[in-house]
Amino acid sequence: MPEYSNFKFEIQNRDSESKARYGVLKTPHGDLETPNFIFCATKGAMKSVTTEHLRAAGADIILSNTYHMFVQPGPDLVAKHGGLHKFLNWDKPMLTDSGGFQIFSLGHGGVASEIKGNRQLTSQKMLKKIDEDGAIFRSYVDGTMHRLTPELSIDIQRKLGADIILVLDECTPFHSDRRYTERSMQRSHRWEKRSLEEFIRGDNGAQCLYGIVQGGIYPDLRKESASFVASEDFFGQAIGGSLGGGKEQMFDVVSFTTPYLHPDRPIHLLGIGGIRDIWNGVEQWIDTFDCVHPTRLARHGGALVHPAMGEGKEHINIKNARFKEDLGPIEAGCDCYCCQNFTRAYVHYLFQAKELIGGTLLTIHNIRFMCRLAKTIREAIRNGEFQAVKKTWM
Amino acid sequence: MPEYSNFKFEIQNRDSESKARYGVLKTPHGDLETPNFIFCATKGAMKSVTTEHLRAAGADIILSNTYHMFVQPGPDLVAKHGGLHKFLNWDKPMLTDSGGFQIFSLGHGGVASEIKGNRQLTSQKMLKKIDEDGAIFRSYVDGTMHRLTPELSIDIQRKLGADIILVLDECTPFHSDRRYTERSMQRSHRWEKRSLEEFIRGDNGAQCLYGIVQGGIYPDLRKESASFVASEDFFGQAIGGSLGGGKEQMFDVVSFTTPYLHPDRPIHLLGIGGIRDIWNGVEQWIDTFDCVHPTRLARHGGALVHPAMGEGKEHINIKNARFKEDLGPIEAGCDCYCCQNFTRAYVHYLFQAKELIGGTLLTIHNIRFMCRLAKTIREAIRNGEFQAVKKTWM
Repeated sequence: MPEYSNFKFEIQNRDSESKARYGVLKTPHGDLETPNFIFCATKGAMKSVTTEHLRAAGADIILSNTYHMFVQPGPDLVAKHGGLHKFLNWDKPMLTDSGGFQIFSLGHGGVASEIKGNRQLTSQKMLKKIDEDGAIFRSYVDGTMHRLTPELSIDIQRKLGADIILVLDECTPFHSDRRYTERSMQRSHRWEKRSLEEFIRGDNGAQCLYGIVQGGIYPDLRKESASFVASEDFFGQAIGGSLGGGKEQMFDVVSFTTPYLHPDRPIHLLGIGGIRDIWNGVEQWIDTFDCVHPTRLARHGGALVHPAMGEGKEHINIKNARFKEDLGPIEAGCDCYCCQNFTRAYVHYLFQAKELIGGTLLTIHNIRFMCRLAKTIREAIRNGEFQAVKKTWM
Repeated sequence: MPEYSNFKFEIQNRDSESKARYGVLKTPHGDLETPNFIFCATKGAMKSVTTEHLRAAGADIILSNTYHMFVQPGPDLVAKHGGLHKFLNWDKPMLTDSGGFQIFSLGHGGVASEIKGNRQLTSQKMLKKIDEDGAIFRSYVDGTMHRLTPELSIDIQRKLGADIILVLDECTPFHSDRRYTERSMQRSHRWEKRSLEEFIRGDNGAQCLYGIVQGGIYPDLRKESASFVASEDFFGQAIGGSLGGGKEQMFDVVSFTTPYLHPDRPIHLLGIGGIRDIWNGVEQWIDTFDCVHPTRLARHGGALVHPAMGEGKEHINIKNARFKEDLGPIEAGCDCYCCQNFTRAYVHYLFQAKELIGGTLLTIHNIRFMCRLAKTIREAIRNGEFQAVKKTWM
């Protein structure tokens, strides 16, 4: 099994009334306190902000997408730079996904149009074939054909050099039936074993590997998949695939999955990033989250705020006319660059005038907001006040 | 006459072989060393970068456009913030133009499509009427009609609160004939007197007023206009209007204009920002320049470099395929955030992938480049090496 000698996950505090836990994940690029949020530098760059902005806003960890980096600029150019950390100038922990989510989203439709970055090519044309070996897909950049296998995904991710890397899985969508979901899950398990074998072959101590739980919305399949992932030599465990049709079902799926995971290993919930979702996820053992939501929302004028300030909502829309002459900050009490230096009226005006720096300012705020939220959660756990603090946010 | 008691322009060094001079322009927001370059925050925001980026890159002074701020968000909202400095978070010197250039560009065509920010409305429809009183134009934002007079321009600029403000003039285009240019110039002179009277009426010591020289490409008209501006109680002098059809004619126009200007007052050359243009301008007595060129160029992939590095050109195009695997910085020796942290290959990739942060990184470089260029020029003058250093740049 891999030694993971440069990695360690220490659970230091536990909430007495739930499964919430405070931990420290040691990586070659520093210690990551958990619970925490992972920001998406999908194509090897954050949208609207520099990595310096990210650092200044307090971000602890970011991710890039293997699928995008594979297609353009290619992993070899990144390797020539010494890996993603050097390429995009980030010296804290990083994660890369396996590429599975994007490829199968493209094939299955669904969230594809949000992900692929090129809406002119229809999703049906992108995924050509899935078989036991892997998947054949068309590049969204130039239409050329590519094959991705579990082994190649690990090879690409090794060149990208993120601290945390993921196995290749097939990401089944919400509308898959039980029969397809089960067969796909079993193939994913075989791919995960191949991923692990390939990881061990090239292991240089710089990376750790997470398995991914599939099984859709079916409790017995989630149990089987979680047990599989927990039994293999993965450093960490990610929950992927369809989490159902709404927030309630999502937490049902999470709650009947995590009991079967390895209790001493970190757990990542893929693609979830709402404020209440994070509070609920932490209560269900989740240590890390990632989602484009905070940064995408910002580019469309949405500023995250404490739900008490947002009249129950988790954000305000700065484009709303009521902010036209509002000389207050985006969120009172926030210590971010945007809130410290600009008014709601100014940011409102920037969106009206189509000045893109408005999106930059809100992105900075939303990053800072997520960092403060994660810190609030960690401190609440450490101080034995998780339930009390959670209540003020729900 | 205005006291301009919070302003002072001290010429401290002169080049022995040309008219180049080193000066310090004292303003309520600090001292501005000249020669210097003014960056364009046209609509009250820089494109692609925050004012923090500008500060970090070493920018000393920025401008906003009265025309744009008048139409949206309106000067009263800016005044409610305490002026442009507070609105956009900039505590160093600022300049606003009078709005004339934009309004008349819209009417006369020419550079309008570059300026108005809305290419769907044709330039012909924008300027409805010019008469002795002022101009009536259509808002590019919502099509509503507005009247701008010399008095109103000063009033708006007082609300905007920049340190340096400009008189309203009619900006005659290159294709104007002599007769039109002369009549327009004389009306501009009458408007400049009205601007000065309005300025004096509301003078609170926080601003200084520059006159503008018109007269197109005609030596006798430029002489007449420069003499007029020099004879009035302006703090500074700007050279506006058509500077001819090419770089050579531009310096002819400048060289037969500046001898008639007031030798102790600062001289600004409107809308010029090429590297060699600045060296030539400084030699013709110009103290400050402004142009969207460095920042617009960056957004299109152009990175300013020393002409010796650009094989005679003043920039490289990072989108060029030859930079695809170039692990060097944008410009060797540059101390900007982009050059210190990212490779040409990375920035090339960002433009290929349509990641807008590529434009941000090049904008930071180009701002830093212009600041370093201005500093090089100032030091060359102070060290008595202007001609020698200029040669290495031509």
